Amino acid sequence: MIIIGELLNGMYKNVGKAIVEKDRSVIQRIAKAQVEAGADVLDLNCGPVSKDQVSDLKWLINAVEEVTDRAIAIDSSKPKVIEEAIKVARNKTIINSTTADAEKLEILVPLAKQHNSGLIALSINKKGIPQNKEQRLELAANIVAFCIENDFPVTDLYLDPVVMPVDVAQAQLKEILESIREFKLLCDPAPKTVVGLSNISQGVVDRSLVNRTFLIMAQAAGLDAAIVDPLDEKLMDAMITAELVLNKQIYCKAYLEAYRKSKL
Amino acid sequence: MIIIGELLNGMYKNVGKAIVEKDRSVIQRIAKAQVEAGADVLDLNCGPVSKDQVSDLKWLINAVEEVTDRAIAIDSSKPKVIEEAIKVARNKTIINSTTADAEKLEILVPLAKQHNSGLIALSINKKGIPQNKEQRLELAANIVAFCIENDFPVTDLYLDPVVMPVDVAQAQLKEILESIREFKLLCDPAPKTVVGLSNISQGVVDRSLVNRTFLIMAQAAGLDAAIVDPLDEKLMDAMITAELVLNKQIYCKAYLEAYRKSKL
Repeated sequence: MIIIGELLNGMYKNVGKAIVEKDRSVIQRIAKAQVEAGADVLDLNCGPVSKDQVSDLKWLINAVEEVTDRAIAIDSSKPKVIEEAIKVARNKTIINSTTADAEKLEILVPLAKQHNSGLIALSINKKGIPQNKEQRLELAANIVAFCIENDFPVTDLYLDPVVMPVDVAQAQLKEILESIREFKLLCDPAPKTVVGLSNISQGVVDRSLVNRTFLIMAQAAGLDAAIVDPLDEKLMDAMITAELVLNKQIYCKAYLEAYRKSKL
Repeated sequence: MIIIGELLNGMYKNVGKAIVEKDRSVIQRIAKAQVEAGADVLDLNCGPVSKDQVSDLKWLINAVEEVTDRAIAIDSSKPKVIEEAIKVARNKTIINSTTADAEKLEILVPLAKQHNSGLIALSINKKGIPQNKEQRLELAANIVAFCIENDFPVTDLYLDPVVMPVDVAQAQLKEILESIREFKLLCDPAPKTVVGLSNISQGVVDRSLVNRTFLIMAQAAGLDAAIVDPLDEKLMDAMITAELVLNKQIYCKAYLEAYRKSKL
């Protein structure tokens, strides 16, 4: 599993404040903590506090790259912001994210190709979030087709079925799990799959329990990557144990420790 | 999920001692504790300490039926023992278990039919435990065919893919999950599926973590019932949350409590 750390997001108070005040130490401490906890990729998002997204995102990228060579996910809903910010990145990058809309794909797929970057693609379009598996698959198939036509390697594509909160769209969670399973069958070699996990548990009392239960099921369905809080130890234990059950991690008595050591 | 409590088994020291000493209070305390924790069925197995399995199992059934009207699983590898013991049962019963061997099916399928009993059937035969999904499916298909030929309702059949310990047969766990998924497709209406969960974590340091991770995946694959320790609260929390994600339990803030209350 590719773990994408979600904590460097301006919507979190401490991160938002650090972005506004240009406080590198706060950002770098959170970056290092996530890496030590097992994050393979660090998501970077300026959030709503940013007055100048391009300059703030560049600053964020620089601050993080000073303390780690892990990959970074450049996270913005605005293609123009990503297009500018990615220029300063030296680490491996993942663009987060495109939708199935042509105007986004036409900018972001060539951009990802040019930078040898991964690309997260949400199976949504301007019409909104799909209400069933079939709609998700249709949008994902369009994205895959666009990538193939434009010579972008689908193994660098991360299809995101868009997870819904359990208290809003409970019946859809099963559809989302099936979507992950079927996304993997869209072409050969298969595209990668990703979820923004914490969406599922908005408003839930024990968020971590719901998050990790869904994550385990998603892993069994073939999930490749997840945007999560890597400091949630129970979530990480569950993720590692799911890898064990799925035979992606060799068994030994101290398999949790062994996994964590292998990441450092 | 149908939760079959595993604690009334003579292989556990306290239960073995109580069976030998005919101490009803110990047995009844464990029976009640499992029911209060959410067990739908109580498995009853005399274990290796029993010198007279028929009489001990009858005593166990009587002791348990004095304190609960939940269903009981009459657990022995000897068809003759089950044939005698089931005569004294007044509660709903599940026979645990037959294999795919003709000499067992020929006794236990008609017996289950006669007593309106459920029947747990292991997808193994005299040749031993299958090494892959295909062998499990072949044996399960033979069992289903035998039930249909003998007019035993397959909705009362609980097919068990036989779970292996992660430190012995790690690569098989994925096959077992796929087997559960495919067992459900063997006929329409579908047979039920069951696992003896704790086998998976023999020798593992944090057994509950491995057990509940596998259980969640098995539920997503369509598992109907599991033989577990219902006093393992984290396991039960995981099971309930998996039902929530799979839309089998309606969401509310206190969904864990709501589930537990609904069982009492």
